[in-house]
Amino acid sequence: MLTIKANNPNLKSFIAVDKDCHFPIQNLPFGIFSKTGEDKSKKRIGVAIGQYILDVKAAHNEGLLHEFNVDLAQMSALNDLFQHGRKKVRELRQIISDLLNSETATLRDNKSLRDKVLIKQSDCTLYLPIEVKGFTDFYSSREHAENVGKMFRDKDNPLLPNWLHLPVAYDGRAGSVVVSGTEVVRPNGQIKPNPDEAPIFSPSKALDVEVEMGAIIGMPSQHGQPVTIDQAPEHVIGMVLVNDWSARDIQKWEYQPLGPFLSKNFATSISAWVVTLDALEPFRVPSPKQETEVLSYLKRKEHWAVDVELQLSIKPAKEPNYEVISTTNYKYMYWDMMQQLAHHSVNGCPMMTGDILASGTISGKTKDSLGCFLEITEGGKHPVVLKNGDKRVFLQDGDVARIAGFCQGQGYKVGFGELTGEIVPFSATLTNNNAQRENEHENKQQVCF
Amino acid sequence: MLTIKANNPNLKSFIAVDKDCHFPIQNLPFGIFSKTGEDKSKKRIGVAIGQYILDVKAAHNEGLLHEFNVDLAQMSALNDLFQHGRKKVRELRQIISDLLNSETATLRDNKSLRDKVLIKQSDCTLYLPIEVKGFTDFYSSREHAENVGKMFRDKDNPLLPNWLHLPVAYDGRAGSVVVSGTEVVRPNGQIKPNPDEAPIFSPSKALDVEVEMGAIIGMPSQHGQPVTIDQAPEHVIGMVLVNDWSARDIQKWEYQPLGPFLSKNFATSISAWVVTLDALEPFRVPSPKQETEVLSYLKRKEHWAVDVELQLSIKPAKEPNYEVISTTNYKYMYWDMMQQLAHHSVNGCPMMTGDILASGTISGKTKDSLGCFLEITEGGKHPVVLKNGDKRVFLQDGDVARIAGFCQGQGYKVGFGELTGEIVPFSATLTNNNAQRENEHENKQQVCF
Repeated sequence: MLTIKANNPNLKSFIAVDKDCHFPIQNLPFGIFSKTGEDKSKKRIGVAIGQYILDVKAAHNEGLLHEFNVDLAQMSALNDLFQHGRKKVRELRQIISDLLNSETATLRDNKSLRDKVLIKQSDCTLYLPIEVKGFTDFYSSREHAENVGKMFRDKDNPLLPNWLHLPVAYDGRAGSVVVSGTEVVRPNGQIKPNPDEAPIFSPSKALDVEVEMGAIIGMPSQHGQPVTIDQAPEHVIGMVLVNDWSARDIQKWEYQPLGPFLSKNFATSISAWVVTLDALEPFRVPSPKQETEVLSYLKRKEHWAVDVELQLSIKPAKEPNYEVISTTNYKYMYWDMMQQLAHHSVNGCPMMTGDILASGTISGKTKDSLGCFLEITEGGKHPVVLKNGDKRVFLQDGDVARIAGFCQGQGYKVGFGELTGEIVPFSATLTNNNAQRENEHENKQQVCF
Repeated sequence: MLTIKANNPNLKSFIAVDKDCHFPIQNLPFGIFSKTGEDKSKKRIGVAIGQYILDVKAAHNEGLLHEFNVDLAQMSALNDLFQHGRKKVRELRQIISDLLNSETATLRDNKSLRDKVLIKQSDCTLYLPIEVKGFTDFYSSREHAENVGKMFRDKDNPLLPNWLHLPVAYDGRAGSVVVSGTEVVRPNGQIKPNPDEAPIFSPSKALDVEVEMGAIIGMPSQHGQPVTIDQAPEHVIGMVLVNDWSARDIQKWEYQPLGPFLSKNFATSISAWVVTLDALEPFRVPSPKQETEVLSYLKRKEHWAVDVELQLSIKPAKEPNYEVISTTNYKYMYWDMMQQLAHHSVNGCPMMTGDILASGTISGKTKDSLGCFLEITEGGKHPVVLKNGDKRVFLQDGDVARIAGFCQGQGYKVGFGELTGEIVPFSATLTNNNAQRENEHENKQQVCF
């Protein structure tokens, strides 16, 4: 394991951070923000600390990051920073850690400087943190694959023959990835409610969430040249929460033989904060054992599971509060992100700065740790009963789905904040919301999660 | 049908164009080029005319395109131009048509000006014409789907139930799209030569071509808002030739249940020239009849098949000449590109400038009109015998595959030039070719195809 100075559990910032806040000095995740009311063209890099955002551009302009020899002032997406690779971003995170440290006077003792570079999150709008280049969705949770296999294939033999030999995946649509807070329009499409009749055109009646996490590629690779499993950790720069919304009825009808298409590519939501792989380092744990021997390009020399607790909550329209309906964990993943990257590039496929390698739905072994409604309700057999008496087999219009994720440190949480999306009916977009949606996907940030 | 002045068959350019050349004044396809020897950073928009390229930047700087009110000087990918939509590009094509017309004196009678803005294609390097945003591969040739279905599923019932109801497709990998002339590295991966044994790691032994065409999206659409079949023709700006290289052995093992992944995303080649939809307009023909009634969002009011003859040729290493092994036609497509676009966006998936909607392998009804080796050899049963006695079930290292495509006008051809790719062994990239490959995908252009 790497020893990273900025991860020291004893560090304190001069900014007060509650023990349940996701953004202590041990985290320092990167995002893209502007002050509410500012023009979108002003969007720039920020780092979350407690209830604040450090304005990296302003800090750069004030000379506070002068030790970092990359021009941070012009960056409007994290790709510009992340392309420099993990070591370089580590440098910047360390400089920022020092700057925010309770023992550093520079900002601590200078209110006017603090006012220039620290902005309350509640006064900010967050944007898609990266320009998403490629979006790949894996299928790497064994429990999920088995649950789905049992439902649709063979109760006694749920995994397909390839599953234990390679991390199954498909190329998804990068262009429909949106940031937390963006409304999700219920997709129209072809569904086939009656197996004996022709398909009909309809809004999806089986709109589901998928609780996932995504690894973000920093340093790119060359076309024709694989990233080995040993090299992989230098190419992954950080992670985000992912909700890969899925229209199960559209999926069922369309997916043979080339895989899911319109059932997935209407929207995928990611968290606004990218937590660096460095910040996750202290929370690495062993992965589940891979009984079936894997080919050597997939053989682990170290473990890359991470203990990230993931909570899925639902808030029906008009209800004031979220209700947790599942709690799962990224550490359950059978295939880890470095195996995924080694597999993805083994054919010479070039990896690009801003690629997302999503995990696929993450489910645990227990009934309360399943990552999508399809599994939670056993294909609709057992609806979720909410506290207000509402039942859910799938999402209804007005429902907000929320994924939250964090690693539990000693007295602090290294977290991703929250990833939310409200389901809106198709017609709503066509009338009222176009102008708003056109004005890019934005996320008015809640106070410290 | 649209009457487009620049398509007039009677037009002549003052630049001599052979009747078999793909680039008469009725074509004027767009590409991205630099003069050989110039730095890559100089790449800019060009328009092919006979054996020359009109340097659009130089022409703009010389004031020759002053009627066109968009700054063309800074554009280094066609996205910058195409985002303005089909009508705007039509304006530019008309201005260029007028400029190159034999009756226009401006260039015709001014050698020094000609020398500034017209460059021999043989002195140029061509680049990927667009920054590829999304790459979607359809499966829209009925003959291809049936041939594959017969081989792998059911001889008497080869189409899956959804095939006649919707244009089946999958999201591919935009980042591995390369321009004609780029070497294609034989992918490594998991294959399973013996069904009863575990998979092995190996270079693909079943490397195939797929003869396809791709529609390029110009004007983007908003997230959440479908492009209707009536609106679709304003969003498609032009077409390219596509070779969607496929590793059949990797595909066979990996593709269940989420579709092809590493078997496809190691490389996809496209032609360097984008032929505008306007230039293809005179060659529109009726599509094959769709017996099964389609849902209304897919119902055609006009036909969008295009009579593009497509030739697949192979040149083994050390052979001097190409040998045609198949001749097919884009007009055979069951689902047309406007149906594809209407389907792709019906769920609200945003379409982006620079998206490619590829047709899928295009096969005709006859044995000499099949679009991939898998079909030509009937799954390996009947190898192709070349004139030199060589046999091919799939591609060998050193083979160059070439796709050429053109529409036959009265005394001229509106064509795409050629799309070539040489297969190189995996190890070659890892040693010699990295620097070259890193220096982006380039295509030293042959003289007028």
